[in-house]
Amino acid sequence: MEFYYYSIIAGALAIVVAAICAMMVLKRDEGSERMRGIAEAIREGAYAYLRRQAITIAVFTIILSVLFAFSLSSGVKIVLAFLIGAIASYLTAYLGMSVAVRSNVRTARAAEKGLNPAFRTAILGGAVTGFAAVGFSLIGLGALLAYFTTDQIPLLIGFGFGASLISLFARVGGGIYTKAADVGADLVGKTELNLPEDDVRNPATIADNVGDNVGDCAGMAADVFESYSVTLVAALLIANSIPGATAGHLFSYPIYVAILGVFASIAGIYIAKVGRRSNIIGALYKSILVTVVIAAVLDYALTYMLKLPMGYFVSVLSGLVLAFLLFWVADYYTGSESNSVKKIATASTGGAGTNVIMGLAVGLRTTWMPAIFVVAAILVSYIAAGNSVYGIAIAAAGMFSLTATILTIDSFGPITDNAGGIAEMSQLPHNVRKITDALDGVGNTTKATTKGFAIGGAALSAVALFVAFANAVGITKTGINVLNPLVTAGIFIGAMLPFIFSSFLMEAVGHAANKMVEEVRRQVRTIKGLMQGKAKPDYARAVDIATVNALRSLALPEMVAILTPIVVGLVFGVQALGGLLVGMIPTSFMLALFMANAGGAMDNAKKYIEGGKFGGKGSDAHKAAVVGDTLGDPLKDTAGPALNSMIKVVSTISILLAPLFLAFALVH
Amino acid sequence: MEFYYYSIIAGALAIVVAAICAMMVLKRDEGSERMRGIAEAIREGAYAYLRRQAITIAVFTIILSVLFAFSLSSGVKIVLAFLIGAIASYLTAYLGMSVAVRSNVRTARAAEKGLNPAFRTAILGGAVTGFAAVGFSLIGLGALLAYFTTDQIPLLIGFGFGASLISLFARVGGGIYTKAADVGADLVGKTELNLPEDDVRNPATIADNVGDNVGDCAGMAADVFESYSVTLVAALLIANSIPGATAGHLFSYPIYVAILGVFASIAGIYIAKVGRRSNIIGALYKSILVTVVIAAVLDYALTYMLKLPMGYFVSVLSGLVLAFLLFWVADYYTGSESNSVKKIATASTGGAGTNVIMGLAVGLRTTWMPAIFVVAAILVSYIAAGNSVYGIAIAAAGMFSLTATILTIDSFGPITDNAGGIAEMSQLPHNVRKITDALDGVGNTTKATTKGFAIGGAALSAVALFVAFANAVGITKTGINVLNPLVTAGIFIGAMLPFIFSSFLMEAVGHAANKMVEEVRRQVRTIKGLMQGKAKPDYARAVDIATVNALRSLALPEMVAILTPIVVGLVFGVQALGGLLVGMIPTSFMLALFMANAGGAMDNAKKYIEGGKFGGKGSDAHKAAVVGDTLGDPLKDTAGPALNSMIKVVSTISILLAPLFLAFALVH
Repeated sequence: MEFYYYSIIAGALAIVVAAICAMMVLKRDEGSERMRGIAEAIREGAYAYLRRQAITIAVFTIILSVLFAFSLSSGVKIVLAFLIGAIASYLTAYLGMSVAVRSNVRTARAAEKGLNPAFRTAILGGAVTGFAAVGFSLIGLGALLAYFTTDQIPLLIGFGFGASLISLFARVGGGIYTKAADVGADLVGKTELNLPEDDVRNPATIADNVGDNVGDCAGMAADVFESYSVTLVAALLIANSIPGATAGHLFSYPIYVAILGVFASIAGIYIAKVGRRSNIIGALYKSILVTVVIAAVLDYALTYMLKLPMGYFVSVLSGLVLAFLLFWVADYYTGSESNSVKKIATASTGGAGTNVIMGLAVGLRTTWMPAIFVVAAILVSYIAAGNSVYGIAIAAAGMFSLTATILTIDSFGPITDNAGGIAEMSQLPHNVRKITDALDGVGNTTKATTKGFAIGGAALSAVALFVAFANAVGITKTGINVLNPLVTAGIFIGAMLPFIFSSFLMEAVGHAANKMVEEVRRQVRTIKGLMQGKAKPDYARAVDIATVNALRSLALPEMVAILTPIVVGLVFGVQALGGLLVGMIPTSFMLALFMANAGGAMDNAKKYIEGGKFGGKGSDAHKAAVVGDTLGDPLKDTAGPALNSMIKVVSTISILLAPLFLAFALVH
Repeated sequence: MEFYYYSIIAGALAIVVAAICAMMVLKRDEGSERMRGIAEAIREGAYAYLRRQAITIAVFTIILSVLFAFSLSSGVKIVLAFLIGAIASYLTAYLGMSVAVRSNVRTARAAEKGLNPAFRTAILGGAVTGFAAVGFSLIGLGALLAYFTTDQIPLLIGFGFGASLISLFARVGGGIYTKAADVGADLVGKTELNLPEDDVRNPATIADNVGDNVGDCAGMAADVFESYSVTLVAALLIANSIPGATAGHLFSYPIYVAILGVFASIAGIYIAKVGRRSNIIGALYKSILVTVVIAAVLDYALTYMLKLPMGYFVSVLSGLVLAFLLFWVADYYTGSESNSVKKIATASTGGAGTNVIMGLAVGLRTTWMPAIFVVAAILVSYIAAGNSVYGIAIAAAGMFSLTATILTIDSFGPITDNAGGIAEMSQLPHNVRKITDALDGVGNTTKATTKGFAIGGAALSAVALFVAFANAVGITKTGINVLNPLVTAGIFIGAMLPFIFSSFLMEAVGHAANKMVEEVRRQVRTIKGLMQGKAKPDYARAVDIATVNALRSLALPEMVAILTPIVVGLVFGVQALGGLLVGMIPTSFMLALFMANAGGAMDNAKKYIEGGKFGGKGSDAHKAAVVGDTLGDPLKDTAGPALNSMIKVVSTISILLAPLFLAFALVH
């Protein structure tokens, strides 16, 4: 049987697992009427946003489809691949979020029975996103591989670009939404009105919980779906350029690695349970470790059975180890007991100014270890594969074969965050809230560590995409000459791109958060009895403000990301475009690490102080740390992660339109 | 006569101009005893720091000299060039600062007579640094050219590295000192004790004024001396690699361009006067414009007389135009009435969190125009010179031929800043302080705009240095293949370097500022009658704390900058090292622009609010803006500018040790 049928079967299996998880969650109890009411409001807000975002995406998708259909030979097949990629990605995000917005209230309810039931509910809810992502990707890719003839394999990039486009929208839009609501809610709620987190009297609190779902759940799902898909596409394209690969096993190997990852992940999720010692984070790390070890064993067996050189297994293993190291290093720098976090907390005693100085210093510092790890993985996987870039491609495939587990653990974050919010707003008993708070705390940590995985993985798969680009434009042998000033020009533009792209997102959050602040202040002023808890705030209005402002800010950064490579490619040609990718990929990687880790560390520094250090909650040090946390929010949840999507959109569109640039560029 | 004698003569002329300016300043009146006492204290602190910094530098210099002497063929001559470069740089910084610490009090005194006398005093004081820098550089280079035989021309890089090393120390040490003192003084003084800027009762106020001199004056002098010197060295090395260039005029052309810049600058400084309309900034811009126009005319005549292709003149002109555009764009983004500044000020109404979010957003945004300008200058100068990298080298030479004027205007900043401080501390009459405040305000703007010039110029000369590196390692034809994973590894490490380097500096400032805060709090607590103005604070102790902490933080970032290229070159070879430069130069450029402009804009947003907007001084918006200003301080005056020096140290040492890497690298 052709290997792509295995891909479709494994994908279908993943979907079945997702469906089982969904059913297991949905049959659980939803709790009291009050809890259901709050969950309903969050659900409505989330769907409303996703529906309106779909319209914006549809416009872009149609325009690009028409462009591709008319400008590229095999345009129709490219468009088909593109649409399948886009639809599969949106479906993942939509279904995953649909379950997440139902798992939150059930997790809160399950917390009344104890820690492990609540933990399992959140894990199962998250697993729906995790397995849906790999399932749809494997089915989509398998189907396209079955349909395309051998010489049409390069058209697979359309699938990757479809996934990238949706990821860019979901990451950017969701990221702006979630932080505008979060920052807005905190700024007035906590600082001006002295309300606790998720207080029912805060008009922005539902919007804040909606944001967790549209940003951290749907956005992250689309992001990881994309990384998974483009990594496999890049591996296939690179394998395809090796003479005779499609006949042998080199071509199917990365797909098999991905398939084995599904089985490893099923085991990893199955064993995720909180034991007697209530060690939540330990349970999650065990789950990852089990997935990594089983994947490694299966990959070894695979390599052996296919009679491929064992060096290939070493390449895959280097990807698996890299995943684990990236987890560790994110925790090392941003974990709640880390030295970096304590440094920032100590600096808070000098005021908000020294807090943010130290926060940015820590963020800048965190780039070096991940950079060394990624470099080491590149070198090891290249050498192990017999000095071949194919090694880098299968290392990335190995790393992303863990996707189902990683994404499950990541989606655990917004579900438990929401569960905490619902418990607070429904005024559940103290012991229940203690459980949801503990889960929420761990969710914050896993959100930071999976971000480290996503950023490092994106860098590795972008390197693979760059190799695919070099193949597509035929510069594999010559390389690109950085002494050519057109290449220099491309490098500078590429290094600049992540800076301006993230500037749009930071500004959008600042702007939308201010609108939210104004709205909350208005409601507090005009709705009588609001602060006394006698009148309900107008949640829907706040939700609407976040929605409108997030969508309004989408178009400009999207267009910059999509148009820059097109303009550079058409005007300055493929050498300059290659330079652009060379300048963009590492710069974007460092900037994303800086932003994500600075934000994560400042967040935990605030929590460290809230734990009673330096005067605890309400002290001057705490107020200073709140400022740092506010700055950290859009850094870690909007700008930083969106860079992942940006580099892949730019890379995939460069490969996709390579024939156009080769034929029509003004300069050669 | 050989052209290098002209270089020595023009250098001597520049030194004479500097001496005349120094005499004109020193014969002016020093004012009252009180003023002299304060100036004396600042002077002592500045000398104390420079002396102790010299010891640290001497240790590094001796170690490196021994290393070079024993490891390189022609090691002794390299060491000679290295020591001449280092000594010339330190002399420039030392002499320039010596006059600056005497011009400050004379400027304050002259302000009693009126705006123009004060303005002229500050300009003449600044001109000493400006002309000393170009003078020592032209003499040093001319002497080495006279001494070296034709085949020893590559050894000139030793001179460039000497200048780079001093620049790195002066920029890093001075930058940490000045911002530790500034932030420390502000945090307690303004926020906790409600004292105005430069209040005599603030124990950190002398240290703050010392910082202006060791950071903004000595640090900037060494930085620009370095850019000027390495640009000329790079141009000479590139010209030297063109067959027959040493025989014709290609080799002497960049030196002639530099020489003509001295004459243009003399005219530019001569006409710098404030007329009846008291337009200080207008006077400075006129001075720059006159320098640019005269330089352009002279360069045209030069090209014509040497019978060189007019395309070369176009290359030089593109450098001159780039200088002007970089000035304009820095002002566009950070000027006190710019949209960006207003955006940040508006965001301050939401609190410190939204202020810093918007501040960073603005900083990130400011990268795009300078990047486009530099790219345009690279392309234009390359094409105009007949598709030759020589064009880029002479564009950089053209840009830096403006050095004397630019550095004069830059040094104007710390002198007027100090003059304001002395006027405040000596309690001079209101009308005098109005004049010193106006000059100080303009000084702040010129400090921001000259930083834009320095960063853009550093990028351009780093590109020229990269070409020189490619020549040195013999990869001009082949280029470097970015598909080689060693090169990829180098690129990632290079992109990471500016992030960790600046993280050390940010942390050092945060740390030292906290020490300063503790000391000021201690003095306020223990010295009775301090706050009532009855007892004098212990200024010397605060000066000492800034000195010790700045010097203590020097070693680590210096070693990272010096050792990284050595380790990469020795272990992974010249291809990887080339990758490192390719990754580092654009990333560093963007990061420096981001930091410098974010800081500048946040500074002016605070001033905008102090001008009465959004509630003015003391309002909540103002408090929020003070936090942004505190973060902006080390961004714009420590981390951002130090990146200029870092990229040139890394580039020059890569060229210098190229023979070593070619012979002994573990991997080839």
